[in-house]
Amino acid sequence: MQPPLKAFLTECQARIETVLESALPPPNASEPTLVAAMRYSLLDGGKRIRPALAYASAQAIDAVSPATDQVASALECIHVYSLIHDDLPAMDDDNLRRGKPTCHIAFSEATATLAGDALQALAFQCLTGATDLDSDTRLQLVQQLCLAAGAQGMVGGQAIDLAAVNCAPDLQQLQRMHRLKTGALIVASVVMGAIATGKASPTQIAALKTYAEAIGLAFQVQDDILDVTADTATLGKQQGADIALNKPTYVALLGLEGARRKARDLHQQAVDALSGFDSKADTLRALSAYIVEREK
Amino acid sequence: MQPPLKAFLTECQARIETVLESALPPPNASEPTLVAAMRYSLLDGGKRIRPALAYASAQAIDAVSPATDQVASALECIHVYSLIHDDLPAMDDDNLRRGKPTCHIAFSEATATLAGDALQALAFQCLTGATDLDSDTRLQLVQQLCLAAGAQGMVGGQAIDLAAVNCAPDLQQLQRMHRLKTGALIVASVVMGAIATGKASPTQIAALKTYAEAIGLAFQVQDDILDVTADTATLGKQQGADIALNKPTYVALLGLEGARRKARDLHQQAVDALSGFDSKADTLRALSAYIVEREK
Repeated sequence: MQPPLKAFLTECQARIETVLESALPPPNASEPTLVAAMRYSLLDGGKRIRPALAYASAQAIDAVSPATDQVASALECIHVYSLIHDDLPAMDDDNLRRGKPTCHIAFSEATATLAGDALQALAFQCLTGATDLDSDTRLQLVQQLCLAAGAQGMVGGQAIDLAAVNCAPDLQQLQRMHRLKTGALIVASVVMGAIATGKASPTQIAALKTYAEAIGLAFQVQDDILDVTADTATLGKQQGADIALNKPTYVALLGLEGARRKARDLHQQAVDALSGFDSKADTLRALSAYIVEREK
Repeated sequence: MQPPLKAFLTECQARIETVLESALPPPNASEPTLVAAMRYSLLDGGKRIRPALAYASAQAIDAVSPATDQVASALECIHVYSLIHDDLPAMDDDNLRRGKPTCHIAFSEATATLAGDALQALAFQCLTGATDLDSDTRLQLVQQLCLAAGAQGMVGGQAIDLAAVNCAPDLQQLQRMHRLKTGALIVASVVMGAIATGKASPTQIAALKTYAEAIGLAFQVQDDILDVTADTATLGKQQGADIALNKPTYVALLGLEGARRKARDLHQQAVDALSGFDSKADTLRALSAYIVEREK
């Protein structure tokens, strides 16, 4: 990773940790187990890619503000809730996440279900709390997030994923699943980061969307590559888990070399989409490179 | 039930059915199983108490409008998602709901989890779609709903309920659990119905909130009474389910007669709270009576 990007990510991680901490109900709330489960999954871990994208997108347009924090926080709440539910025994049945026992292992299935549910509500609460923005802009952010998170976005993609186990989808179907499952929230991260500046033009939003669609797919291609090339300790989750579940992957469809080429092509598309931006978009460019070069 | 209230509820049920139908993704969407599960649980059934409260509250202040439809729809999405998740094997493990197999029985646990998740996102989407309201008012509605639905509202109450199985909470703790678990969303129904008229004064909102808190508890007291007095066919769900799970109930704490007295007292408090309203609030008054007199 380029040193400036590493510094940026470290800064984002520290910053979002504080923001998330203050968004959560206090640990001594009257529902201590629920809040403990929310804190367990939300704090102290994770690459924080979505917050980083929102911050980098705000920078590309103008500058990071308290509203960016609320957007970043909302995105991470949605992402983490989806991981908690995705890990449940009835879904992917994963025991390990970010190197720790998953939420339902550390607590219970019931508490994990509720913690995920509460984090989704908290995400929308974060957006309404972006009080440095006018109501119009905050409402736009809510609109973006519920579309990206719901049946026509992330959850829709998870449902396709579920139906695809033991099936043999083609490349187009696989791409469509990922566009929804992980892509929709990545696009929302970049677009919402820009909207929250209150200064992004429709042309800029469109370019950022193209960028985000490319890196969203690249992220998934790289995930599939790592699922076969990295070891469990590096990944912090079970290596080979997708293959064990007989899930369709880019590596299965394109081969390892083909998948690596696909990741590089997508990175190039992402960078091309930013051609109208000046050096303030360099962090977005570096993030795209990082996504296809990361080793976990 | 009084004939005018019966007519009102029938009209609400027909109206909300159409609104929910148009809020849902089309049945031939590309995620057919997910959408089928959402439709299965959301359409064609249910007393639609929360929509009815929102409509009645709008009437008490001014009149029902398209914005009331969006509010009613959002409330029902949240309510139905909570039922789907609450029925899961890891939670209450119920097989029967509204006289039909529960969502995870009709589909799968994974699909039921996702359908609930998608309905929560859809709820917020409904609110952003109340385009006859200005952004300020819509944002207020989003704020009310995420607080009522999240860790400090409904989900918090479910977590307390979970922890209370096989415990022996006192009346105060039981009341607190219900204030969150079912009360928060009932209060939101009445308050949001009023807010969506754009004409409710703070005094009116406060009075409606007091009304709603009383009927919210009354609703739960009556549920506990019915759990021991009604049969499974009438209820449309397993009779005696709470007792079988050794869940705390008002009947267990107050006895059957004590619980009936409590329900009547709460109804009186609700009616008293509406003393400043004219006959336009008669439906709210009748709804309060219905809640403590209903037989399922």
